[in-house]
Amino acid sequence: MDELPGALGTSASLSLRMGQTIFSSAALLFMCLDVEFYSYTAFCFLVTVMGLVIPWSLTLSLVDAYSVFVKCPLHQPGIMLVVIIGDWVLSFLSLAAACSTAGVTDLLLNVNGSHCPARLCGRYQLSAAMAFLSWFLSLASSLFNLWRLPSL
Amino acid sequence: MDELPGALGTSASLSLRMGQTIFSSAALLFMCLDVEFYSYTAFCFLVTVMGLVIPWSLTLSLVDAYSVFVKCPLHQPGIMLVVIIGDWVLSFLSLAAACSTAGVTDLLLNVNGSHCPARLCGRYQLSAAMAFLSWFLSLASSLFNLWRLPSL
Repeated sequence: MDELPGALGTSASLSLRMGQTIFSSAALLFMCLDVEFYSYTAFCFLVTVMGLVIPWSLTLSLVDAYSVFVKCPLHQPGIMLVVIIGDWVLSFLSLAAACSTAGVTDLLLNVNGSHCPARLCGRYQLSAAMAFLSWFLSLASSLFNLWRLPSL
Repeated sequence: MDELPGALGTSASLSLRMGQTIFSSAALLFMCLDVEFYSYTAFCFLVTVMGLVIPWSLTLSLVDAYSVFVKCPLHQPGIMLVVIIGDWVLSFLSLAAACSTAGVTDLLLNVNGSHCPARLCGRYQLSAAMAFLSWFLSLASSLFNLWRLPSL
């Protein structure tokens, strides 16, 4: 059985998962360095979603690392299906969080600039950008695994 | 070849497309009844995306109606692929627009209530809800067509 790069248990998948973990941690960190985020619903949503994405990506990167280094590939359609659906749902949530954060940050910057010091708003923008990158990598993982599913 | 309900050219697909057209038109209408939306980036984005979704859904509902009433089903993988990718992209854009609109409306309502009369903000909320419904139906269409693709 040939290994599709990017499917669960390959080194490409390991790097995708590492990227997701790094970007979602960065999004969480940029948002949480101050406690200001607590007053905006969109920012709380981002923190919640990133708090779900980090353990998920971390767990799957451990599974990938085990599978790559011990040379024991996973070929169970049930597990793959759970991973695909989880990635799918988390990618939608990440996109939703990133978009609402970007929208709110843009509003804070443009309409009432006094509400948001430039330093703080720059950090919110970085956080939204990191959440977008995390969404993109989750979606890529999900698509690679979906592509792989019928051949199992 | 059995017809999967919801795939291109069935009556279920026709009703999905009609729903998309109605919900996206409603979202556009609720947003555009005043010209206030022009000052917020997120609302302009929603209007742009809904302006893309409406002709797309309308065209595909015409194709479905033709296919249902003339009994001439479409079985070309190329067309299906274009439809799936288009639905996919538009569903992501709809979700992004709905989330940023919802985030911005929430901010306008809670943080600085004076910026937004209740009547206007209620309309923005309705518009975001309609965009969410339109996203959901686009995603359903895309998934049904994707499910159908391998059997063509």
